[in-house]
Amino acid sequence: MNTEMKLRKLKEAAPMLADTSGDERNRALMAIAEAIYKNRERIFAANRADLENAEIDGVSAPVKGRLKFDDHKLEDVINGIKDLTGLPDPLFKVEMRRELDEDLVLVKETCPIGVIGVIFEARPDALVQISALCIKSGNCAVLKGGSEAALTNRTLFEVIEGAVLESGLPENILLQMEAREEISELLKYDEYVDLLIPRGSNAFVRYIMENSRIPVMGHSSGICHIYVDKDADVEKAIPIIVDAKTQYVSACNAAETVLIHRDILEKIVPPLGKALKEAGVELRASEVIRKLGEGEVMTEKDDSTEYLDYIISAREVEDIDEAIRHINHFGSHHTDAIITENSEAAARFMRLVDSAGVYQNCSTRFADGYRYGFGAEVGISTGKLHARGPVGLEGLISYKYKLFGAGQIVGDYASGRKSFNFKDLI
Amino acid sequence: MNTEMKLRKLKEAAPMLADTSGDERNRALMAIAEAIYKNRERIFAANRADLENAEIDGVSAPVKGRLKFDDHKLEDVINGIKDLTGLPDPLFKVEMRRELDEDLVLVKETCPIGVIGVIFEARPDALVQISALCIKSGNCAVLKGGSEAALTNRTLFEVIEGAVLESGLPENILLQMEAREEISELLKYDEYVDLLIPRGSNAFVRYIMENSRIPVMGHSSGICHIYVDKDADVEKAIPIIVDAKTQYVSACNAAETVLIHRDILEKIVPPLGKALKEAGVELRASEVIRKLGEGEVMTEKDDSTEYLDYIISAREVEDIDEAIRHINHFGSHHTDAIITENSEAAARFMRLVDSAGVYQNCSTRFADGYRYGFGAEVGISTGKLHARGPVGLEGLISYKYKLFGAGQIVGDYASGRKSFNFKDLI
Repeated sequence: MNTEMKLRKLKEAAPMLADTSGDERNRALMAIAEAIYKNRERIFAANRADLENAEIDGVSAPVKGRLKFDDHKLEDVINGIKDLTGLPDPLFKVEMRRELDEDLVLVKETCPIGVIGVIFEARPDALVQISALCIKSGNCAVLKGGSEAALTNRTLFEVIEGAVLESGLPENILLQMEAREEISELLKYDEYVDLLIPRGSNAFVRYIMENSRIPVMGHSSGICHIYVDKDADVEKAIPIIVDAKTQYVSACNAAETVLIHRDILEKIVPPLGKALKEAGVELRASEVIRKLGEGEVMTEKDDSTEYLDYIISAREVEDIDEAIRHINHFGSHHTDAIITENSEAAARFMRLVDSAGVYQNCSTRFADGYRYGFGAEVGISTGKLHARGPVGLEGLISYKYKLFGAGQIVGDYASGRKSFNFKDLI
Repeated sequence: MNTEMKLRKLKEAAPMLADTSGDERNRALMAIAEAIYKNRERIFAANRADLENAEIDGVSAPVKGRLKFDDHKLEDVINGIKDLTGLPDPLFKVEMRRELDEDLVLVKETCPIGVIGVIFEARPDALVQISALCIKSGNCAVLKGGSEAALTNRTLFEVIEGAVLESGLPENILLQMEAREEISELLKYDEYVDLLIPRGSNAFVRYIMENSRIPVMGHSSGICHIYVDKDADVEKAIPIIVDAKTQYVSACNAAETVLIHRDILEKIVPPLGKALKEAGVELRASEVIRKLGEGEVMTEKDDSTEYLDYIISAREVEDIDEAIRHINHFGSHHTDAIITENSEAAARFMRLVDSAGVYQNCSTRFADGYRYGFGAEVGISTGKLHARGPVGLEGLISYKYKLFGAGQIVGDYASGRKSFNFKDLI
């Protein structure tokens, strides 16, 4: 079967999956958890083979860390699935019930999006998580994982697919893609795929956004800022900046630029320079800051660079409004923080900065579905349509309008023979 | 100033507009309504000139009808603006307030999308409506209206812009584009424009979708179906089909195809054929239906044609599931109706048909923001992300996450020194 036929089958299965009850979908999730546990040795063996190939290919240590699927990861994914079964069913929620006129009732009800294509990094646990989230939300899923995890993913997919079928859910609700070339096929078929969620490097996400008519949820870059206001508490500012930069440098919510109000420069620059040095961070700073004895030369390019590394840039600003303008211009609308004890300044910053997350006195690294208490995360969106910021299950949900009538025609309302009589029933 | 500079100014003004209160925005709306009334003679004069040009250019009667801006339209737009001021402010609504841990509070709050580009037909009242909706929702707007209304639009825009400035809202929140060539400029600047709402022909909307990275809200086509179930009440079916086809043939929610359960063919085809003939509608029908004495030959192309004219196609189906498959395959996911007295059949149809609107026993022409009681309509979306179906003010709204801390860093939670303690405060 070619890719088009496979995608078409998924699209045809989508309404059938959308029509299953929350209990049926939860039963499938429990079956997946059990099957993964039962087949763990087969999965571990496939993962060992992937790890050996990665060793031969000279893959970096962090990539190998994400690639590894061991007892610990097994427990995590199984617990994750069990947590999901405990969440309320996101489907069939009535968001509005309105009588338009006698015997003419409009109901707005949640439903799945349909077919979701997820392209993700070489992390086998991601395959399990994404499948589980899509099943919970009643969406068909096309899964393309990083090639380094090919053998583990193939085994996991077989196990998941088997469990789904045995649990009684419709056929053809999951599709695995293995070859990189299939991605360009996936991007073409906007009649079969409703949403793409690409995770990975900036260049990759941008490639997807530019080469498909299918809507994309996600973010291509994360240039997060910390603005140290004149009323900042330096004792708070320094650990926050160090955490936001170093707690996980390759994350999209790591800070890349510090903006400092000129009135507080002398107070914060020396201890900040020292703290960054101790944390192994290279500081690239404006001339004014370097005159205070800290930092290497920065260029304009640094203002718009996502380092994803132990490097941070810093420059002074005249006032909070310059900081806001800088962030709205150079930032990626992901997550930006102000450090201040002045609640008016914080409120102004948080209203005017046009980002998914606007923080006061805490690390940008909190921008994450788990830390927001969403239970599970699909990704982080910097778009302003549909879901924004860390996206939980609700990002996989749409709605439809059901209108129940008794023979009504519009001609009667247009001519004035009848008139609407709106009444919200819930 | 070139287009890029103008768009950039809008983008910079967007946070300032987002920061205004509901009262300030309502005052601007009232000022617009007053200014339009005060300048009505100037506007009517410009409109008369547009109508004369249209006469010379041989523009069709329906287009001239939409182009006309008279006392009646004036009253409509002024009442529309006044209605808008009565709606609650869609901004600053707190949708979630969650304590993540002590002194670490996450707030999800609605905000505008930012800069919205609307490209609309030659209807001067549309310019007023769209400006008003954008101001109410705190969005900057780029307005490009149909060229036939150029003089009226220019006058209206001057009047509106003047009223907005006098009312004290920020500068540069509205931008008018007049030349068709500017559209391609608009499509290029995804860094300044957050959302496009194109209204117009299928080909035009598809062109916009294919030529911009900016998200698009709307629909390119409306192929709406009416399925007459075996348990249909023929007395209801016929007026509904006639209304759905003829009440306004060039609307996207007009019906294009009737699917008839084979068990009810003999009962419905003769009276339906007669009713359509009386309404001046050409029926193109499958062989089985033609054998019952009604209809012209239809081809496969008819299944996927949006006639926008007094033409309708009809074919028989084996059962409800064939109807559902047909609609999901050939339809445009806009609005589709079932005629049946069987509530189980209706429920199945409404669950499995993947359209923004799924109706029982009423005309597809009800798919409209005003008829849904939304007060005002931005457009109708056939996409499943963000807003779906008729879109009111809420389609112009996004949200942001505000996180209020007291120095928290993620390292403390990752190391286990601290742990999250999620508690919903509202």
